[in-house]
Amino acid sequence: MSGRLYVVGVGPGDPELMTLKAARVLGAASVVAFFAKAGRRGHARTIADSHLAPGVEELRFDYPFTTEVSLADPRYLAEMGDFYGACAERLSARLDRGGDVALLCEGDPFFYGSAMYLYDRLTGRHPIEVVPGVTGMSGCWARAGAPMTHGDDVLSVLPGTLDEDVLVERLLGCDAAVIMKVGSNLAKIGRALDRAGLVARAVYVERGAMAGERILPFAALEGPAAPYFSLVLVPGRRGSR
Amino acid sequence: MSGRLYVVGVGPGDPELMTLKAARVLGAASVVAFFAKAGRRGHARTIADSHLAPGVEELRFDYPFTTEVSLADPRYLAEMGDFYGACAERLSARLDRGGDVALLCEGDPFFYGSAMYLYDRLTGRHPIEVVPGVTGMSGCWARAGAPMTHGDDVLSVLPGTLDEDVLVERLLGCDAAVIMKVGSNLAKIGRALDRAGLVARAVYVERGAMAGERILPFAALEGPAAPYFSLVLVPGRRGSR
Repeated sequence: MSGRLYVVGVGPGDPELMTLKAARVLGAASVVAFFAKAGRRGHARTIADSHLAPGVEELRFDYPFTTEVSLADPRYLAEMGDFYGACAERLSARLDRGGDVALLCEGDPFFYGSAMYLYDRLTGRHPIEVVPGVTGMSGCWARAGAPMTHGDDVLSVLPGTLDEDVLVERLLGCDAAVIMKVGSNLAKIGRALDRAGLVARAVYVERGAMAGERILPFAALEGPAAPYFSLVLVPGRRGSR
Repeated sequence: MSGRLYVVGVGPGDPELMTLKAARVLGAASVVAFFAKAGRRGHARTIADSHLAPGVEELRFDYPFTTEVSLADPRYLAEMGDFYGACAERLSARLDRGGDVALLCEGDPFFYGSAMYLYDRLTGRHPIEVVPGVTGMSGCWARAGAPMTHGDDVLSVLPGTLDEDVLVERLLGCDAAVIMKVGSNLAKIGRALDRAGLVARAVYVERGAMAGERILPFAALEGPAAPYFSLVLVPGRRGSR
């Protein structure tokens, strides 16, 4: 009989921002599965560490690449598709042997999580339960003291990979915004915020709710590149005091 | 010496979807403060119940009205502003007497939470810490089995109170959408989804992650009105299988 797959959101970084349910599921799982950058321990695995049962079996999925290949490169989708397909088959084979598997996911699983690509492939084939988590953006705006959406504000979540003109248009179509995937898109994001008249309201958050956290007005930011775990918050109408 | 104000997100409904930190803060607080509809126990108070210390002091804020007055009515902002001002002064006076206060908030405090209106008035006057939570929408899309945003999808969170034409325009400017505050706006939302060509992808969730949960394709929904705790999910490009 197949084991059950739990797709577990472990929250934004601080292990205490995991839900009670996530902690219970992690403590009871026979197997913990997770994605990691080659040579690293894995960010979700680190967050989950104190909640795992001693001697839990580990199923590790090493990304073939992370930021070295651009999303626009045709190789990206093809190779990542093959990778996720292979991960899903390993996970499926392990579930067939019985025992529950907890597949870790930073933040919330259905919000830009890699785990979705395995969920997409395994739904209907195994019993699956998704445990929602606190998103990285919630962790960041709480730390930044930035109330985001009051009343009837529209919030848009925008990947920093969008073209500059599209970014400007999307920023003008909402009251509050979160710009994810800042990294090497920082200079372009700065130009888009400027054209949308939003630089003065924008807040830059690096490694929010993690060690090495850095929060400052976007306008005070210097230098052209930002690390992977960074985002830009544009609080909504009432939040922009 | 002033007590510390913790603004605590208690998650989407299931008490087990509260974070470990929220549970710890609730168990240690001298006072629990919360909003409630007159005559009701209060939704956030109910979620928090099993985590409160026995004999905790309760500071209850009864809304002067909830859905009886429209947001477009000038009375709404004026009376709610007075109400939030009075709540903030009660909270401030209690903090001045010492002891920590946990102000409860459904979902995540900085994401459409009433607690923001007190945070806005008290920030800088008392020590405040915000504990982020799992949003109602995350609770809903996990229960609906609806992966929302893959890769570079743009997500927009839209209040159902927007005009039909604005709703259509905003829906066309994103890949994935969440429409909140459905209630009496249901028929208008249906017309907007239809004009944006999104009815077939939309999922209706009522009381997600709570007792009495109901999840169905938007197209299968009958009747003109929906309860307060309902939303519509439009999964993004890859989620719309």
